[in-house]
Amino acid sequence: MAPPTPRVVVPIDLKKKPWEQLLPLHNRWHPEIPPVAHVKVGEVFRVEMVDFSGGAIKDDDSATDVKFMDPSTTHYLSGPIRVEDKDGILAMPGDLLAAEICNLGPLPGDEWGYTATFDRENGGGFLTDHFPCATKAIWYFEGIYAYSPHIPGVRFPGLTHPGIIGTAPSMELLNIWNQREKEVEENGHKSLKLCEVLHSRPLANLPSTKGCYLGKIKKGTAEWEKIGNEAARTIPGRENGGNCDIKNLSRGSKIYLPVFVEGANLSTGDMHFSQGDGEVSFCGAIEMSGFLELKCEIIRGGMKEYLTPMGPTLLHVNPIFEIGPVEPRFSEWLVFEGISVDESGRQHFLDASVAYKRAVLNAIDYLSKFGYSKEQIYLLLSCCPCEGRISGIVDSPNAVATLAIPTAIFDQDIRPKAGKVPVGPRLVRKPDVLRCSYDGNLPTTRNPAASM
Amino acid sequence: MAPPTPRVVVPIDLKKKPWEQLLPLHNRWHPEIPPVAHVKVGEVFRVEMVDFSGGAIKDDDSATDVKFMDPSTTHYLSGPIRVEDKDGILAMPGDLLAAEICNLGPLPGDEWGYTATFDRENGGGFLTDHFPCATKAIWYFEGIYAYSPHIPGVRFPGLTHPGIIGTAPSMELLNIWNQREKEVEENGHKSLKLCEVLHSRPLANLPSTKGCYLGKIKKGTAEWEKIGNEAARTIPGRENGGNCDIKNLSRGSKIYLPVFVEGANLSTGDMHFSQGDGEVSFCGAIEMSGFLELKCEIIRGGMKEYLTPMGPTLLHVNPIFEIGPVEPRFSEWLVFEGISVDESGRQHFLDASVAYKRAVLNAIDYLSKFGYSKEQIYLLLSCCPCEGRISGIVDSPNAVATLAIPTAIFDQDIRPKAGKVPVGPRLVRKPDVLRCSYDGNLPTTRNPAASM
Amino acid sequence: MAPPTPRVVVPIDLKKKPWEQLLPLHNRWHPEIPPVAHVKVGEVFRVEMVDFSGGAIKDDDSATDVKFMDPSTTHYLSGPIRVEDKDGILAMPGDLLAAEICNLGPLPGDEWGYTATFDRENGGGFLTDHFPCATKAIWYFEGIYAYSPHIPGVRFPGLTHPGIIGTAPSMELLNIWNQREKEVEENGHKSLKLCEVLHSRPLANLPSTKGCYLGKIKKGTAEWEKIGNEAARTIPGRENGGNCDIKNLSRGSKIYLPVFVEGANLSTGDMHFSQGDGEVSFCGAIEMSGFLELKCEIIRGGMKEYLTPMGPTLLHVNPIFEIGPVEPRFSEWLVFEGISVDESGRQHFLDASVAYKRAVLNAIDYLSKFGYSKEQIYLLLSCCPCEGRISGIVDSPNAVATLAIPTAIFDQDIRPKAGKVPVGPRLVRKPDVLRCSYDGNLPTTRNPAASM
Amino acid sequence: MAPPTPRVVVPIDLKKKPWEQLLPLHNRWHPEIPPVAHVKVGEVFRVEMVDFSGGAIKDDDSATDVKFMDPSTTHYLSGPIRVEDKDGILAMPGDLLAAEICNLGPLPGDEWGYTATFDRENGGGFLTDHFPCATKAIWYFEGIYAYSPHIPGVRFPGLTHPGIIGTAPSMELLNIWNQREKEVEENGHKSLKLCEVLHSRPLANLPSTKGCYLGKIKKGTAEWEKIGNEAARTIPGRENGGNCDIKNLSRGSKIYLPVFVEGANLSTGDMHFSQGDGEVSFCGAIEMSGFLELKCEIIRGGMKEYLTPMGPTLLHVNPIFEIGPVEPRFSEWLVFEGISVDESGRQHFLDASVAYKRAVLNAIDYLSKFGYSKEQIYLLLSCCPCEGRISGIVDSPNAVATLAIPTAIFDQDIRPKAGKVPVGPRLVRKPDVLRCSYDGNLPTTRNPAASM
Repeated sequence: MAPPTPRVVVPIDLKKKPWEQLLPLHNRWHPEIPPVAHVKVGEVFRVEMVDFSGGAIKDDDSATDVKFMDPSTTHYLSGPIRVEDKDGILAMPGDLLAAEICNLGPLPGDEWGYTATFDRENGGGFLTDHFPCATKAIWYFEGIYAYSPHIPGVRFPGLTHPGIIGTAPSMELLNIWNQREKEVEENGHKSLKLCEVLHSRPLANLPSTKGCYLGKIKKGTAEWEKIGNEAARTIPGRENGGNCDIKNLSRGSKIYLPVFVEGANLSTGDMHFSQGDGEVSFCGAIEMSGFLELKCEIIRGGMKEYLTPMGPTLLHVNPIFEIGPVEPRFSEWLVFEGISVDESGRQHFLDASVAYKRAVLNAIDYLSKFGYSKEQIYLLLSCCPCEGRISGIVDSPNAVATLAIPTAIFDQDIRPKAGKVPVGPRLVRKPDVLRCSYDGNLPTTRNPAASM
Repeated sequence: MAPPTPRVVVPIDLKKKPWEQLLPLHNRWHPEIPPVAHVKVGEVFRVEMVDFSGGAIKDDDSATDVKFMDPSTTHYLSGPIRVEDKDGILAMPGDLLAAEICNLGPLPGDEWGYTATFDRENGGGFLTDHFPCATKAIWYFEGIYAYSPHIPGVRFPGLTHPGIIGTAPSMELLNIWNQREKEVEENGHKSLKLCEVLHSRPLANLPSTKGCYLGKIKKGTAEWEKIGNEAARTIPGRENGGNCDIKNLSRGSKIYLPVFVEGANLSTGDMHFSQGDGEVSFCGAIEMSGFLELKCEIIRGGMKEYLTPMGPTLLHVNPIFEIGPVEPRFSEWLVFEGISVDESGRQHFLDASVAYKRAVLNAIDYLSKFGYSKEQIYLLLSCCPCEGRISGIVDSPNAVATLAIPTAIFDQDIRPKAGKVPVGPRLVRKPDVLRCSYDGNLPTTRNPAASM
Repeated sequence: MAPPTPRVVVPIDLKKKPWEQLLPLHNRWHPEIPPVAHVKVGEVFRVEMVDFSGGAIKDDDSATDVKFMDPSTTHYLSGPIRVEDKDGILAMPGDLLAAEICNLGPLPGDEWGYTATFDRENGGGFLTDHFPCATKAIWYFEGIYAYSPHIPGVRFPGLTHPGIIGTAPSMELLNIWNQREKEVEENGHKSLKLCEVLHSRPLANLPSTKGCYLGKIKKGTAEWEKIGNEAARTIPGRENGGNCDIKNLSRGSKIYLPVFVEGANLSTGDMHFSQGDGEVSFCGAIEMSGFLELKCEIIRGGMKEYLTPMGPTLLHVNPIFEIGPVEPRFSEWLVFEGISVDESGRQHFLDASVAYKRAVLNAIDYLSKFGYSKEQIYLLLSCCPCEGRISGIVDSPNAVATLAIPTAIFDQDIRPKAGKVPVGPRLVRKPDVLRCSYDGNLPTTRNPAASM
Repeated sequence: MAPPTPRVVVPIDLKKKPWEQLLPLHNRWHPEIPPVAHVKVGEVFRVEMVDFSGGAIKDDDSATDVKFMDPSTTHYLSGPIRVEDKDGILAMPGDLLAAEICNLGPLPGDEWGYTATFDRENGGGFLTDHFPCATKAIWYFEGIYAYSPHIPGVRFPGLTHPGIIGTAPSMELLNIWNQREKEVEENGHKSLKLCEVLHSRPLANLPSTKGCYLGKIKKGTAEWEKIGNEAARTIPGRENGGNCDIKNLSRGSKIYLPVFVEGANLSTGDMHFSQGDGEVSFCGAIEMSGFLELKCEIIRGGMKEYLTPMGPTLLHVNPIFEIGPVEPRFSEWLVFEGISVDESGRQHFLDASVAYKRAVLNAIDYLSKFGYSKEQIYLLLSCCPCEGRISGIVDSPNAVATLAIPTAIFDQDIRPKAGKVPVGPRLVRKPDVLRCSYDGNLPTTRNPAASM
């Protein structure tokens, strides 16, 4: 008997650039990006991946790399991987691909990550109007724990997960995506006049050959040009899974993905050591390189069987997930609430995004009383294992959202207490969340090229 | 030594109507509703409460009572309760009132509840366009468990909590509420042209003497008339807490409420045996009568200390909560995802409400394949201990929301499986979620009187 | 429809003595104790019970009542309850009785309990050689929480459970019990010369009419005399369940009991608000009066089907349990270890009792450094939700047992820390664990009459 | 900044024998075994280790290797590791060494393990009188999960931990060990006449040069001879930690070890992918090679401060542990009970070992009704994450022990059910727990050389 060590189907050499890897990476969704590996159902295989930026963001004390990062290359994915059953028959459109995450983690020798916010004109984040500048915090890993020299006094176990896992779209589905996103990009401003939430952020990121990598398809060729102009950006999550950023997809989880093309063409990337619900600062998880060990099953005809959509086409579906049995266990949570009245005092109608924004702002304000700058807390709430819940979505006009923070991640007691020494303006414990210089002038126009 | 049996400060006699109770109930928020009880910090006291409808909804097989329910009386609250410290000094504006939930439950002899959806023209629910008719399911309790003759095959332990707990607003705060809600009521339609989410539901519920109860203030008096025309409805959660519908506020939780008037004037009601995040069907928890055993502390000056708001006034705050250590423990969850593309295929910009709607619709569709009608699942997801999360709120243009359902509440395995007997149109196991007759014509005008 | 409020099949009037209750209690196991109530499978019914001592131990500051308690009356049980199926056919010998605990708690108006140790000559406890005197601590309940004026600085949620639940033995089984316990009582001393563990405690408690209550059978009659001389004491757990003291049998648990007589004749009592594994101080749980809400099923022929014994007769079985989904949730535990080397330094061979004794002694010693007397900690470890594990039972000659204590029950950080203020002899925070005077002379002879 | 990749202080080359490793291993406890590595407090370092048998047990279908295994070489340990503080001052006798387990796992490329029982005359196990033959089951790992071709139908996530972690004893402590273990070895038989539990197993394993490895001390030298004749075997856990087999010492745990010699001289080995409480089959965890990533602190003077012993000398102490926040989460447990009446029907006095034996026998009997052989279940209960509790240790004469088994590890529902198809003698699903041939004659004399 031979022990079934996972076969490495996509290896990563950390000394090489994303475009120099043995099996070339890609950063777009398109049915014609050729598979780089094949796996069989039942086999445990290993996929390695660079961090979403492909090494553009460094382990140092400056946020300059974040400020000037080119968002057009986001995110470098490993794959596509073609999946077949025990008889060698490929996964087919209409099937469900069940991928179990047997294990995952950082790449050995690369046990660190970062959390960042982009500049307002370069992609921003959930609270970009409050925090318009690029910032960055570095995290080091001690086994299951992460700690940051830039946010002292916190340490937590990672609920590690891939930010992106998805199957390739069919051409029909890709056309649907491009059409609906073009519509919001073109007409969004008008509507945003009235119901804007996050007015200065990019509305969508339409296909573009700028920064485009398509795996085995050589840059500059006619094929590359054609596909690059059609292929969807990887920023949003969509029907194929993709950038769902679901923080609980950790060890032992199972992901049921719809299959749109022969072989399923599974891709994955954007590994997160940890993330808070919402990933609020945008580049907000603890971003890192990493590996996944996966085992696949094919549920023949499963899309029709399990995913019949409530929508205009049969493609109008979303993946299903099973959460695994191994998660960090916290027993005490401090919970912040937000309602859909924005920070200017304006009433919105059952808007969960506004309510969640208020919950996050309330938490930032509160926690900054314990010796932190607001920027530190904004980064922390992006990446620590906090839970963002939609508590009430029906009590007109206020949606209620909550943000629950495990108290054990702090080395001090952060609960409200009678008779504690009066809190007030305190010194930031260490002024070391770094930001590059910012002149203080808010940008006058939103930069439509700025994306991720 | 005498054992400290909780003092009943607000008793309920289930044989009497809400307006006949020894200590009169109220269903509005206003600083001038007189306290009916006084408590000291450190004392464990008991507050009893009717169900939110005050007994209007019955334990029977017809949804007629739901269809014709008068929403103007919603919700009957117990209180206000005036809180003072050990020296007899009242809680004061600017303090924080910390209320610990030592225990809670149904009123003895009244161990049942209901989950319902209102008719579209009578308040509707989160999915009112899909489910426009009044429906009702009855739940019976076996100790910690609830089961329903109308939704067979499920049983779950209750995460029991008060839907409403809050302090009285000051006049200044009340004016802010009324102004901003009037604004959305009056101007909402224009904005909703472009970014409507739930177009046929009431936008706000402005003050009105119709159905108004103000505790000790006698109906029909000039004082009652004046206050009734100012007092806020209890439907939405606001700065004072109120109808937050946070499903985890169960035994052992602690609620930090801002104090706006002398004595804090704490009120509570709308007890839920169990609720899912979002309470999607609106009357969607397992609604019941019940009791709370509370213990209060006053954190002097705590509002300024802990709640300095990011907003236009010092009143622009929200409560904080601590979740307790005793919750039902589930180890396996099936998770449905939604993105901010609505069910017509239209793209919305980072709209968590749309994403959550899609997640709920996806779950309803999926679970209806296991022998349930969609109405049954809609009611079930309103009241079972499912978790609604904001997973991604930054990846333009798609917000990602998830709905996680504990698999153990079903008596069958609801996970997707290869090689299972083909699913397809199945008979509803028992056609017993009840609805009253509905003629199928969608209402041509939204009924602005319909509230709750 | 009528809500199914649990029928009270055994009521308790707290103002009356155990022998004055409407349905007479019993404190022995015997097949001929007549049932006092009948229930059907599927019905949720309520059983009320006095505390194990029947009110002999009081809510005061003196341990005199404990010191002079008559152990012959232990424990007062409610029942027997006869169980039949939906067709009115009784549970029969060879069936399994599945009893689900739907709910439980203290009796309303009696929300307090006590933890005690008996005098060495009156029953002692696990550590009686170290703690030979009677002590007592009173606990008050604030809903789910208990706190004690005698052990300040700790507070914990109760994992409430019945200490005793069991079916009546058949005459054949009763004879087996009496024979084997007589054997240990008579010949135990010889063996204890060599392998004694707890040398000064009673070895067994053989049948005796002293203090005997047999329910409906009148005291002093010939029948009473005969049965009293045969009936088993309730101290130990046995094949019928009985005094198992399994701390996790709380809300939602299911107990599968073998049926030895027609009707099963279920009895229960000895309610515990909370208990640590092992109940080390003997009268060591938080003892209280209380109620159980139960629902029964009969598994016909289940004994043979599920319990085929590895032993000399078909009666040589033990119950099975399912633990429920609602337990207090702790995330941090401090764990003490013991090995089977006793406190005199002597090596024992794979003796888990000795190992556990050492683990408990180690924990007592450690925790007493945080401002407590050893007596306080001994009582605390008896009743707080600590876990006693058999970690290793094979590594000759040392068994390894562990005692895990949730750190959150203390209001101080009890973990070892570098650079903390040196610990050493500290003042007991409050010298208020009460004990009655004790002259310091160890008893020269074990009192064989002393039991429970 | 450089990411702090853990330094490998003890590397293992899996292609080499234990005695060929770069840093020589040892399999005894002695103060004079020279350190092979040095670490500083605060540094995260990696220790690799062979499996306890040093590769003697193979991944195949025969238990012959188990039957003829030489127990004298047990267990190969990595270390000793000398620990110093940031100023280079060594840990000193009287200090506490706090070692945090930051991470651990199997060695890459070696993702398998085994569970076995030894022959009765070669070490046996907890139930050796019932299961006298050598058996073996192989386990393969799929990331966090283990499954076995020899025990089909079960799969569970590992609660991975080192079976052995300990500091070197001082000469004084070593002498205490040798004396007390010699005493039990020499006089044990007499006492076992009366209170034997596991009569045919070795009583102790006294020092012997047979199979002895002492790290850098060359075999055959006078020094080796002297130390080998003094050095303690590694089988039992003792005051220095050692073979505690505490199954919860997984990621995030912290171990507080007493320091007896300069530098502490920490050693570790015997990695377990998973283990049940008690490790009942003796070679009963899922044994494997592996790695630990540790971080140490020194608590100066901590032994006196935190461990003041209740015993004859200051050395009479035991380690303390903190359990980490990441454990597999199970919500449903089936619990088997045992009382201290042995399987022959004989009554023992409060003997937790006997009670636990009965609980395990009850579980084996029960689970074998679901298509397994008793040998398969015996192996399974040794290694799956089951919990062994001391539930009652005071209710004379019966100790009550419980064994709780998470139901989710089985692919079938193992709970008792009314109306299920009658259970009875079933075919073992696959007759593939392997055992070597055994002639059926029980050994006439216990083999005193057999140890492990």
